[in-house]
This record gives sequence, C-alpha cells and structure tokens, in this order.
Amino acid sequence: MGINIPNFLSSKSKNRKMIDFQDLDHLDGLSISTVSANLYKTSRDDVVMFYFRDGANYASVYTQSKILSENIKWNLNQKAKKIFSLLVNTRNANSFTGEKGYKSMQSIAEAISLQLSHKQKEDEKNPKIIKPKNIMFGCTGTIGETFPVEQITLKIPDLIKNIKYTQNKLIWMKAALGIMTTDTQPKMAMEECTIGKSLVKIYGIAKGSGMIHPNMATTLGYIFTDADLPNDILKKLLKKNIENTFNAISCDGDMSTNDMVSIFSTGKANNAKINSVSDKKLKYFELSLNKVLLNLAKRVVGDGEGASKFITIKVLDSNSDFDAKKIAFSIANSPLVKTAIAGEDPNWGRIIMAVGKSGTQIKINNLSIKFGNIQIIQKGKINSSYNETEAADYMKNSNIEISVSVGSGNKNFTAYTMDLTKKYIEINADYRS
Amino acid sequence: MGINIPNFLSSKSKNRKMIDFQDLDHLDGLSISTVSANLYKTSRDDVVMFYFRDGANYASVYTQSKILSENIKWNLNQKAKKIFSLLVNTRNANSFTGEKGYKSMQSIAEAISLQLSHKQKEDEKNPKIIKPKNIMFGCTGTIGETFPVEQITLKIPDLIKNIKYTQNKLIWMKAALGIMTTDTQPKMAMEECTIGKSLVKIYGIAKGSGMIHPNMATTLGYIFTDADLPNDILKKLLKKNIENTFNAISCDGDMSTNDMVSIFSTGKANNAKINSVSDKKLKYFELSLNKVLLNLAKRVVGDGEGASKFITIKVLDSNSDFDAKKIAFSIANSPLVKTAIAGEDPNWGRIIMAVGKSGTQIKINNLSIKFGNIQIIQKGKINSSYNETEAADYMKNSNIEISVSVGSGNKNFTAYTMDLTKKYIEINADYRS
Repeated sequence: MGINIPNFLSSKSKNRKMIDFQDLDHLDGLSISTVSANLYKTSRDDVVMFYFRDGANYASVYTQSKILSENIKWNLNQKAKKIFSLLVNTRNANSFTGEKGYKSMQSIAEAISLQLSHKQKEDEKNPKIIKPKNIMFGCTGTIGETFPVEQITLKIPDLIKNIKYTQNKLIWMKAALGIMTTDTQPKMAMEECTIGKSLVKIYGIAKGSGMIHPNMATTLGYIFTDADLPNDILKKLLKKNIENTFNAISCDGDMSTNDMVSIFSTGKANNAKINSVSDKKLKYFELSLNKVLLNLAKRVVGDGEGASKFITIKVLDSNSDFDAKKIAFSIANSPLVKTAIAGEDPNWGRIIMAVGKSGTQIKINNLSIKFGNIQIIQKGKINSSYNETEAADYMKNSNIEISVSVGSGNKNFTAYTMDLTKKYIEINADYRS
Repeated sequence: MGINIPNFLSSKSKNRKMIDFQDLDHLDGLSISTVSANLYKTSRDDVVMFYFRDGANYASVYTQSKILSENIKWNLNQKAKKIFSLLVNTRNANSFTGEKGYKSMQSIAEAISLQLSHKQKEDEKNPKIIKPKNIMFGCTGTIGETFPVEQITLKIPDLIKNIKYTQNKLIWMKAALGIMTTDTQPKMAMEECTIGKSLVKIYGIAKGSGMIHPNMATTLGYIFTDADLPNDILKKLLKKNIENTFNAISCDGDMSTNDMVSIFSTGKANNAKINSVSDKKLKYFELSLNKVLLNLAKRVVGDGEGASKFITIKVLDSNSDFDAKKIAFSIANSPLVKTAIAGEDPNWGRIIMAVGKSGTQIKINNLSIKFGNIQIIQKGKINSSYNETEAADYMKNSNIEISVSVGSGNKNFTAYTMDLTKKYIEINADYRS
C-alpha cells in the first residue's frame, strides 16, 4: 500500500518537472552499482555501492540513540578527508552485533579498498590508493542478527564489475529500490541550481518506513552533489538544513540505532571556491539542498508504514523554537490524533489534549486551531461559524493540514507525519515472521 | 473485547477472596446513587453521586496537562475542609468549554448543596449546612462539547432520592459501571487492614481506557476508606503511592485534561488519631492503599483500548529512579514494541531500540534482557543457550513480563502497559461516530 506521492509534488509547484524523480541522471564523479547478495532470499538487489573515482568531500548526521549500530561506530571512527565508497545494505542492521559486527565492517572495508585500488590502477591516469578508512557504510534491517559478512564480501567483485562511469535514470531507480526495507516506493529527489556562475546538481535518495521520528529513525538519506565544497561547510549546511526536514518528520515516535543522512560532493562542477557557510554564492545551493532534503523527508512520511494520509502540523506564534517543536511533535506523535485522522474524524478535542500534554505553557485565550482553511478555535473559543460537516468533508482529503497558533510569540515549527492505521499494526506485528 | 482480568489476581495471591471486587459492601459514612441523565442517549447510568453524610476528609492528584478541564479547575479552586459529595459524569469531559463550562460546575454544586442541606435537615439529628465548595466533580468523555448542565441538574432530585444508608455489592457495581466510557469492564478493588487496633476498609473504583499514560491520563480513580485520617496525611499518602501505581501505567502515551485520583476518608472506623505520615500505625494502611491503587491501575491497563495482552516492564539496576522510569516508559510507549507483542514476536531488537532512544546513558556490556524467565541478552551478548522457539512460545501468554537490567546501579522501576492492536485503531478511529 502506501499513499500516492502526496499533492505537494503536483499542481502549484513550478518545478514539477525538475523534482520528478525520473529525471535523476548523470552526476559527474559518482558511479552506482547494485547487486543481490541474497540477503532477503529473493533476487531483489540488497547491496548498493556508491563509488567516487576521485573521492568525495562529505558530512553525515547520525541517530541520537544511545545505542549505535556497528556501521555507525565504524563511520564515526574513520577520520578520512575523502570518501571513495559508500556501501549500503538492507535486511541486516548490524546493530547489537558487538565486536564481531564491527570487524565485519572492517573486513568489508578492507576488501572494497583493495579491489577499488586495483580498479584505480586499471582505469585512472593517476591512480589513488584507497584505504579502509575511505569506505563508509549504511546498514538497515533487523537488529541483533549476525551480520552476513561473507555473503556481502563475495559480491564485492560483482559490484565493482558493474560500475559504469555514466549514470542514468535506471541506475538511480535501482539504487533507491536497493536500499528499501518495508518501503513501498523508492524515494528520489533532485534540484539544480548555481553556485556563482556554475550550474550544480543536487541528487538524493532515501529510505524510511517504520520507526521514523525526529533524529531520523530508521531513515537513510544520501545526498550527492557535483558542487565543490569542503567538509566543514557540508557539515554546517547539513546540520542546519536537517532541522526542518528530516528532523521534522515523525511516523511513530520510535528511533533506530542506524539512522544517518549524508552528503557527498564530488567537486566536478568546478564552482568558485567557498570558504564560509555565509558566502552569498551559497544561497541558492542551500535553498536547493533544503528542497531536496524536505522532498525526501516528505516522501519518507508519505510512505510511512500503513500511511493513508499525509499530515502537516504547523505550530505558529510560539515564544520559542523549542516550544513550537515540542507542541508540533506532541500532536504528531499522539496515537489518538493519528487514529482520529485515519478515521476522518475532525476531532479537534484531541489536538487540545496533545497541546496540553506537550508540557509548554499555554494560554487558552490565545489558542487558535485550523484544519486546512477551516477555523475551528479562535482565541480560545469555538468559531461561531464552525460547521462540523464542512470539517468532516475536509478530513476526507489525503493531505491534512492542521495549524495551531499559540499566540505567545513569533516562532513557528512545521512537523510532518502520517495517520495511524490498522495496516501499521499488521506490518509491525508480522515484521519478522 | 478487553482481556480477562490478568493472572495477577489469581493463584499465588492469598488475598484472592479479599481483592475480588464482588466483595465491596458497606462502607460507613458513604452513600452511592446512580442515574441515567440520557447523556449517551441510552438508558445506561451516566451520573454517579457519592454522598458523605458527615463529610469526608480528602485529597486529590490531578493531570499534569497544561490544559485543565473546568471540573478540575473547580476542584482546585475550592478550599473546603470536608467534601460532602463527589459527582461523576461520563460522556462529556467539560474540557475546553470555557467560562460557561465552569459556571455549569458552580450551578450544579449550588443545586446539590441546597438539596443535600435539605436532606440533612430531614435525616440528621445535627444537620450540617452543605455549601457549593463542599461538592467535587469528576468528568470524562468528549472534549469541547457544551456541558449538559440542564440534563444533569434535572436528575439531582432522583440521585438524592436514590440514596440509601447501607451500601452493597450491587451499588458498587453500578457506580463502577456508571463512570465508564469505552471501558469494557467495571474496575473495583478492596483491601481491609488495621490502624492500631481498628479494622479499616479501603474500597476503590476506577475507569480508564484511552489516553492512559503516567500522570493518569483519562483515568478516574476514587478511593474510599472509613479510616479517620486528616487531609494532609491523605495527601502525602496519595502522592507517594500514586508513583508506582497509577503513574506507572501507560496505554498510548497520551494524557487527558481530566485525570484525577482522589481519596476520601469518612472517619467512621474510629481508629487511633494519626498525626504523622511516618506513624508506624499507618504501615498496614499504606501497604493496603498501595495494593488497592495498583490493583485498579492494572485493571485500567488490562482493559486498555484494544488490549489483548498485559505487559509488565521491569527496569532493574539503574543508577537513578529517573533513568529507570525513563527507560521503562520508552519501552512501554514504543509502538514498535507494542505491535511486536501483539504479533507474539519475541523481537528483542525493538527492546534494544527503545532502550537506546530513552536518552539515558547505556553501557551495552552491562545490558541484560529477559522475557519472562528466558534470558535473551546477558551482559551485552546473546545468551548462548537462547532458543527463539521457546521465546516465541512464551509470547503466546496473555501476561508478558520483560525485564531489562542496565547494570549501572540499584534503582528499579516497573511500568505496566498493553499491546497495540488493530482493535485500538478501530476504537479510536470511530470514537465519536
């Protein structure tokens, strides 16, 4: 199941064509290959290799769980200046697998670096020596099962053999499909913009489904750009723009041990050198990066387990960002709000409940609530022209927008979530069986 | 639906007969009457009056929501030494009803106090004058609908006419049924104990179902005792013993604007005067009060919306009470844990996930996890003799106990919750329809 790609992609947007994921194509400096290592015991692709023949600058943000998967520990321990390959596998999270799981990462990194170094000698004029520390991993799937190190290692030669130096729509689709777990749709997004006079591309893929919460639970998001940007600027851009994108989504309030969003820059666009994140030449790039991140984050929510409706929760006029976010997630994570929306019931009492339990100071007389354009509560009172039939009609939409103005300041936060359906229970009660 | 009363009430307990709710009978100083005010548009009782002919000492704890229902505001504003009547209605929460809702409380309190004062003159040798401030309210039901003040006021004469000075099993059952919303079972509990040489009774009823979380969301709990205890001691006892009972349960992490647990003491047991909460004569009373509160709290969870399993989560060996509680509720509130249990899947990876996202510092090498008596994780490693088939068999029980030892100290916390089923979605997607 999973709902159709939400309306936010259609109509109003002038960039309709631009952000249609069919259009991802060649991004200079990046190669992609995929393979089935039989991890799902089917022929589906389950391991995806991203290869940067000249290396890529990079930055990552990771889960805030206090228990980290072994691949994330590996990534955090390497201090390479450039990444030459990102390897992503599904089906096994390599989490709670201990030292053995960590050594699996090391052993695969050694195999990849050795074989890619060999490829460099064959293909490049100035071959580089690639080291294990230049390899990064994304893992997703079940926690606590032995990591299939041999199955994956045996497929590395095939992954490398499959590498082509020109990418097309098909290979992006295969990559987006290859990193999926219970996702029902591949998730891709793209923007093009300029840095100074240079045209640059920003491409991204993601996976989501269960356990999606701020801090990107069970989310993998990978952004690729041909821009030339140093690691510290990539890090600042990613940290800043993750806040209102991947950290603004929630499906069930759970969070995994494996979440990561990374950006890789190949530098092939030959743009003007950027030394500061506040450089005005970065303005369009940052806007476009935010669009790609938000587009992917929304796709993750839209395809959240069992989702039948896409829900946007806008908290307005709060006295702090912190409070606005707290209220937005108190609503977005409330099972009672989410089931009411699944039932197409304009049950605004549950919004009040969720605002109340957020723990922030609320002045009822300043509180206003809208469902779409329908004003329900105005300054603490039920709007005299409020008509429940109209609101019930509104709830039949597949995109629901709830606005809550708390009237205590000028800070806003928008959270994105989905409804809570029987299908969610079905998927999660059967996950491993 | 709703599961059968969990096993904790059977076998092992020597007090089996004592805590069987059939045995609640007369409690001196208290009268109960019930009526249908047609709030549900059926003939079911929906308003319950508790009348203390000589007044009762009392104490209450309320929801921590920042938005309070009008009846709770009323209760908080009265500073009476004694309560003469507690009136509880279902179907309408009198929440987000503003000044009009508050005035409804005032007007009903005036009507009751007037009519009960009249009854005092008829029935008592030394009639007391009962004032509006001596009346307390419990409300539960839908938020934001106009409070049915007239419907209820019109039924006050019937409620008072129905008052009898001897109570029996039947009237307790009617009271417990009369305060229900989507509960499927009435909830009653009792204990008898001594204070000094005097035998005292502790009776209680509760309602629960949706929105149950620590801080007693949508829970109403009313405890009645014939002990003679002053207000301040009742308050201290209640606050202390609510922590590991009503504040240790969670169904969906939501919390209502209306929750309250109160205790009333009629003083008819003529026990020795108690001046301090640390008086040794209170020992058995406090133990028994805790039993009644825990018994009711467990019944609330056991009858949580859509529940098919009762889940006990023990967090052991934490370095603080605060962390132990945080971990316990991170597990108890996780939709992924609760759906796995609904699916009878011994998916301990989700326990790891929930421990990780609790935000407490965790040393994996100290972490141990048991399902029932089955040791799954021992000191950070999968137990070598762990057998998943055995664990899968265990998950078929209707009572599931999960123990997590974090091995960082000697503090423990036990939380109680239920599984997350399709039935929960059904109930909550249709609540108002």
